[in-house]
Amino acid sequence: MVFAPAVEELYPPGAATFVEVAGLSDRLDGASRPGHFCGVATVVAKLLIAAEPDRAFFGQKDAAQVAVLRRMVADLRFATEIVVCPIVREADGLALSSRNVYLSAKEHAQALVLSRAIRLVEGLVAEGERRGGVLIEAARKLFAAEPSVRVDYIEVVDWATLLPVEVATPGTLFAVAAWVGVTRLIDNAILG
Amino acid sequence: MVFAPAVEELYPPGAATFVEVAGLSDRLDGASRPGHFCGVATVVAKLLIAAEPDRAFFGQKDAAQVAVLRRMVADLRFATEIVVCPIVREADGLALSSRNVYLSAKEHAQALVLSRAIRLVEGLVAEGERRGGVLIEAARKLFAAEPSVRVDYIEVVDWATLLPVEVATPGTLFAVAAWVGVTRLIDNAILG
Repeated sequence: MVFAPAVEELYPPGAATFVEVAGLSDRLDGASRPGHFCGVATVVAKLLIAAEPDRAFFGQKDAAQVAVLRRMVADLRFATEIVVCPIVREADGLALSSRNVYLSAKEHAQALVLSRAIRLVEGLVAEGERRGGVLIEAARKLFAAEPSVRVDYIEVVDWATLLPVEVATPGTLFAVAAWVGVTRLIDNAILG
Repeated sequence: MVFAPAVEELYPPGAATFVEVAGLSDRLDGASRPGHFCGVATVVAKLLIAAEPDRAFFGQKDAAQVAVLRRMVADLRFATEIVVCPIVREADGLALSSRNVYLSAKEHAQALVLSRAIRLVEGLVAEGERRGGVLIEAARKLFAAEPSVRVDYIEVVDWATLLPVEVATPGTLFAVAAWVGVTRLIDNAILG
């Protein structure tokens, strides 16, 4: 069964109601994209009210979106379980995204710095390094070697609050966003 | 059956999600009480999601609240019918309100200017007067004769948008709010 409402069903004429998750919506991708998570929370609330699903599936790649929606589901008491699906990668490591089609071959190669940073930090954590500042600095050095890629953010945060943590613990989110040409890409790892 | 959740069930620790009905929430009582209708929309959304009622009953006396909630129910596609219950009045005409207990006997007498204004405007409409400005001016003169009562607003508006209308039509909202001592009272009529 597929529930695929038309745009005008979800946004009737004169629609004026918005769902805002305060605080969380201004962090990570929300800081770069004002209003974005308000749009996400509003349309997901409409879909959950209309479909009343037992489970709703979202990708881990949009980790900040997951945090915003988990908070919304808890606060508004939706009887829906948010299920997080793992990041899927191309063979070279680039996280799958609808935006990847906008990358030239050269940009695609440059974009691999994001997944290299993820693997680097996961490796450091596996070796026992848990200081947020040290993990961020290591990733920042890697990006510095790929100056055509402009960093938006490199963060080590609590996945529930999206606030920076000094020391990573199991479940801490390491997340990066960067511009490759005109294309903004994101990647992340849930640290072990 | 009564569903009466505890405060901490509706407002879990860290709750950060708000439902905002833009525009409508800043008109009539929303203009005097910033943030009030955001709180109303948020808690009613939580109750509708939790209880999934076929019908939800609200008083016409809170006419702006009704407009905000009707818009929210339409926008978020709640499968709930908003049923509006008529204003109930004391024998002397004062609209029932939990706030009436705060009125001294003298203030109670002064407060009757609100319901007199409602009756006056209903009478003018029955006689064929439909110009919003004329109806408001007639009510304003009545309030001027009771200077101890401070007018907050006197409005003739479309009940769906809460925006002023030049000419009242069946269903137009005439609404007043005024301070009697430290007590803010409201009253209204749906014009015929």
